[in-house]
Amino acid sequence: MSGHDSIHDISLDARRAYLMSCLNITVASRAVIKEYGKSGFTVSKKSDRSVVTAVDTAVETALREAILKEFPTHGIKGEEFPAHNCDADFQWIIDPIDGTEQFIAGIPTFGTIISLYYKNEPLAGLIDHPALDVTTYAGAGLGIYCNGARLEQPCSGRQQKERNVRIATAKRENFMRWSDDSAVFDAIVRGYPSFWVFDNCYSHTAVLSGAADAMVDYNVRFWDVSPLKVLVEEAGGVFQCLRRAERTDGAVSYSVVFGVPEVVRELAAIYEEYMAKKRDT
Amino acid sequence: MSGHDSIHDISLDARRAYLMSCLNITVASRAVIKEYGKSGFTVSKKSDRSVVTAVDTAVETALREAILKEFPTHGIKGEEFPAHNCDADFQWIIDPIDGTEQFIAGIPTFGTIISLYYKNEPLAGLIDHPALDVTTYAGAGLGIYCNGARLEQPCSGRQQKERNVRIATAKRENFMRWSDDSAVFDAIVRGYPSFWVFDNCYSHTAVLSGAADAMVDYNVRFWDVSPLKVLVEEAGGVFQCLRRAERTDGAVSYSVVFGVPEVVRELAAIYEEYMAKKRDT
Repeated sequence: MSGHDSIHDISLDARRAYLMSCLNITVASRAVIKEYGKSGFTVSKKSDRSVVTAVDTAVETALREAILKEFPTHGIKGEEFPAHNCDADFQWIIDPIDGTEQFIAGIPTFGTIISLYYKNEPLAGLIDHPALDVTTYAGAGLGIYCNGARLEQPCSGRQQKERNVRIATAKRENFMRWSDDSAVFDAIVRGYPSFWVFDNCYSHTAVLSGAADAMVDYNVRFWDVSPLKVLVEEAGGVFQCLRRAERTDGAVSYSVVFGVPEVVRELAAIYEEYMAKKRDT
Repeated sequence: MSGHDSIHDISLDARRAYLMSCLNITVASRAVIKEYGKSGFTVSKKSDRSVVTAVDTAVETALREAILKEFPTHGIKGEEFPAHNCDADFQWIIDPIDGTEQFIAGIPTFGTIISLYYKNEPLAGLIDHPALDVTTYAGAGLGIYCNGARLEQPCSGRQQKERNVRIATAKRENFMRWSDDSAVFDAIVRGYPSFWVFDNCYSHTAVLSGAADAMVDYNVRFWDVSPLKVLVEEAGGVFQCLRRAERTDGAVSYSVVFGVPEVVRELAAIYEEYMAKKRDT
């Protein structure tokens, strides 16, 4: 999630082409999701107790095929299968269905998450909600778009002046994974009692559209948050990684905050205050 | 929300006809919402600091006209206009747009809430989500339906055995309206860290579909919860009014819990424990 300015190696025209490829690739994921939508599917438990459906794996297979057909030399990291071509400069990060629990339950806010990194810097990012027909995407230096229309700095905090601040947060259970940071959640909702919990990437979309001012996502995997830096920065907001932690099972989990700069600053301060207290005890 | 068995005065055939009238009336609300959907609208603040749009009032006007055209002798209570024909045996309770904040922000989970009471007993209830094309409805003794298909006891708790319990709750801010009961919210999310906050009647729909096991709605108006008793009972669950309180502004607010019987019992116990503590101090 860091890097020097290698992104400038890639021309604006080339970046536009990569961003359009992100959109093109979601045609593949949408087709598979639609196909399974009505026909039903099997559900299994993964080793980390989360659920996976036949749709998750079918969608990731379709995404990988679509990516490698267009970019045979690129690398891919995804939720459901081992990483492919880890040493390539271009890396696609994909989460075929974020919000599998909701997808199974018929809640339409689940989404597909795609990003493209070049030498560890985000080049393009996309969040697609097939059941809502809402796709939000951005390229480095290209701005942010939703369903074909350019958005005017939705995370700059302008909307916020018209109403009370409202945020989105991960559910309290996220803050209790691997170690008990539930006090962070409790402090957040004491400070921001008006909040939404969608429990999937619709929270991200809500911030990127300006409907919510910021979000705290907690103890999630890289593919859950991989497009956020470019999306949020192109939206006029800030993205901050609060913590990158190796879990007891060896995987790395991320805790992040993003959105309107002022609100992100306040939420990050709540987290830092908690961490300072934790160190003192 | 109480009454003797006057509902048996109404034949099953007549109840079916009333339920179909609920559906028929939503054709009117959907048409108005669709019309405004893309064209934009003005937003104003109400005396209780909540927002109202031109769409709210236009939808309620359309609903009232549709109801009175079919049932000129019935009464109507709605969010936006004074009550009509308060002494009639049949009373329609309507909330034209529940989740106006989300509607304004482009979040598609807002809904229209309609119920019909006969001598203070609920006869039929409906929650319609025009942007999601999801309508859930039930009639006393007739079962519960979603988009034309009968649901098989979605609140009986069968689904719950396949996964961890998850609930929906009102946001913490609701628990701080008029008096500070935020401790109830805190206790609920300590007990149920896996929860969703949709901040509108999509929480109700999630419970009625079996996606969530129960919901606590707090300090809301009668039109926000009016169809829930008949919907939840026809879904095999239980509906419990925790509190009916006169607010400092004279209006009455309701706090309710509903869904899978076992989960409702536990959530009600959390509330009762809080109230007992409050009385002791």
